[in-house]
Amino acid sequence: MKKIDIRIPAKEYPVFIGANIFDSLEKIIRIKKLSRNLFMIIDRKVMNLYRDDIKRFSSNFSGKIFINEFDASEANKSYLELAKIYNDLIAIGYGRDSLIVAIGGGITGDIAGFAASTFARGIQFVQVPTTLLAAVDSSVGGKTGINFGETKNIIGAFHQPEFVLIDTEFLKTLPEEEIICGIGEIVKYAFLSDKKFFELLKNNFHKLLELDSTFTTRAIETCIKFKGDVVAKDEKESGLRKILNLGHTFAHAIEVEQNYLIKHGQAVVVGLACALELSRRTGLLSEKLFTQYLQLPFMFKDKITLNAFDPLQIYEIMKRDKKGRENRIKFVLLKEIGRLIVDVEAEKDEVIYCLNKSLALFIK
Amino acid sequence: MKKIDIRIPAKEYPVFIGANIFDSLEKIIRIKKLSRNLFMIIDRKVMNLYRDDIKRFSSNFSGKIFINEFDASEANKSYLELAKIYNDLIAIGYGRDSLIVAIGGGITGDIAGFAASTFARGIQFVQVPTTLLAAVDSSVGGKTGINFGETKNIIGAFHQPEFVLIDTEFLKTLPEEEIICGIGEIVKYAFLSDKKFFELLKNNFHKLLELDSTFTTRAIETCIKFKGDVVAKDEKESGLRKILNLGHTFAHAIEVEQNYLIKHGQAVVVGLACALELSRRTGLLSEKLFTQYLQLPFMFKDKITLNAFDPLQIYEIMKRDKKGRENRIKFVLLKEIGRLIVDVEAEKDEVIYCLNKSLALFIK
Repeated sequence: MKKIDIRIPAKEYPVFIGANIFDSLEKIIRIKKLSRNLFMIIDRKVMNLYRDDIKRFSSNFSGKIFINEFDASEANKSYLELAKIYNDLIAIGYGRDSLIVAIGGGITGDIAGFAASTFARGIQFVQVPTTLLAAVDSSVGGKTGINFGETKNIIGAFHQPEFVLIDTEFLKTLPEEEIICGIGEIVKYAFLSDKKFFELLKNNFHKLLELDSTFTTRAIETCIKFKGDVVAKDEKESGLRKILNLGHTFAHAIEVEQNYLIKHGQAVVVGLACALELSRRTGLLSEKLFTQYLQLPFMFKDKITLNAFDPLQIYEIMKRDKKGRENRIKFVLLKEIGRLIVDVEAEKDEVIYCLNKSLALFIK
Repeated sequence: MKKIDIRIPAKEYPVFIGANIFDSLEKIIRIKKLSRNLFMIIDRKVMNLYRDDIKRFSSNFSGKIFINEFDASEANKSYLELAKIYNDLIAIGYGRDSLIVAIGGGITGDIAGFAASTFARGIQFVQVPTTLLAAVDSSVGGKTGINFGETKNIIGAFHQPEFVLIDTEFLKTLPEEEIICGIGEIVKYAFLSDKKFFELLKNNFHKLLELDSTFTTRAIETCIKFKGDVVAKDEKESGLRKILNLGHTFAHAIEVEQNYLIKHGQAVVVGLACALELSRRTGLLSEKLFTQYLQLPFMFKDKITLNAFDPLQIYEIMKRDKKGRENRIKFVLLKEIGRLIVDVEAEKDEVIYCLNKSLALFIK
């Protein structure tokens, strides 16, 4: 079992990574002296696949335990579902001294984390990510939230977990589409971190697709260490942390325009292609590096399929994005791997051009 | 204009107190370089009384400004009203770079602060309390939240304001009942702080009732300084801050049992009487001091009227209170002025006895 420490000034916490480590959950809760009033929010799909493991945990746990099965979907990352969680917490008489454990992907972690951050002005919270995307990205860093109306993640809070437990066994039952999503986010870290990791990923892409245990653990570790360092320096995203949004301004809008028929991690890959194109068009990125860098998103060509799209609508959705200040869209662009520029504004025509060109790569 | 600095480790902010200082709002926002996308949440009653002042401010303000008039009531401290605020914020295209200004009493400050803490994962926030209770207590310290179902303040967050501006001019239009509420909370600080302030209050009770400008400002200042020191040492209420709940475990339950026909600050006075009685019954407080201390809540005798009450129901409501751990009610009791004991448990019979005896004081 590997351990990475996330050193945020207000709160340090460990991330544990390993195969078959779910059974350590009880022990870690005990050692860290967390509340023994457990409220588990579990993606129903995960519950159905790992019912025996979860039952074993809950029957061995000496404390109160309540299980809330959650049908994870963007539509259910809503106030309506949040209210059900609040209702359950109140009905069973839980108060400030309780601990929410989220077992599932990014959506489950986001809504569970937001419930933890707002119930009784903040209770303890543990993340057990079961998707590759949640493992490499959303389970660490404390971003929590729900969607509101048409706007993704607009209601939320920063609320760091007590610890994160990543058991790679959960990944084995993921459909390929979900693995692609996780790899999409890993590719983002390739552009953020260094050339070595970029090359490593390019040359071992198939190992990730096959979930080769050693390579997957190594990739997860690299991403989390990188993210942990960034978040430790800028928890609330007032500066440096913005680099983690590389490709995401595009991705969020593409997801909405495509009516969520494309998944977040897939949209990130398309968004990365857009960000590379815009970096080239604005002269930040050389033609040579652009061609070289695009190879990585291009490896997903057969794994991601977009429907017909309306670039103008995508542009309008981006304008409404919460990151926009004074209605101007700010992009994260790159000069080369590891050298990011944040808060770049761009001409509407240029953005439309990049959308048309990059999205075309993923139209069959 | 007086200035008190609240020195919370994660965030320092000033509280300004004075007569006719509302016109300084624009200047303070400018000097502190806060966002110029203003979203004002204003208690409709205040808006109707001070429309000219607010219009003058908004027409002189060089930036965006949106006014949300809010019908402040416990019933409206709800998700339904919060959703209206979110909708407005989204509809006018506001994002992370916005500033919510709350103008009103504790209810307005609580819901506005919670909106600020959860919109776009936290935006800037300014408190302009217009009631005595909000001025002396709820506007400082960062507690924000809404009610959920039958449970008061169960959904919320800690979110400190950028600054607090207390213009004592707003107090002049308060109905007497509201002034009583504020004095109730001031009396709590008399028990928490020192004998000198206790005596001062007892001897100048009429000055508060008449809102004597010098004395009121002095009382507000004393309370805020005391609270600021406590909150600076324990922002998230893991220990010391609990003393600020003196009388409040009783008060919340009494409010609910009386169907909110008694106001929060009035309930606090009754709750303080209960806490004194329970302190005496448990042997913490001597008979002599008890008699002496009860004089202060007793001064409200003609100003607070309770309906017939059911002590058992009040007890059950307390049990469900979010501060309860493992369903045991924890009280804040006192040995003498300034010497508080937190997390005291008590026998049910004793609690019922205290409720019967103390509430009887306020039955006509």
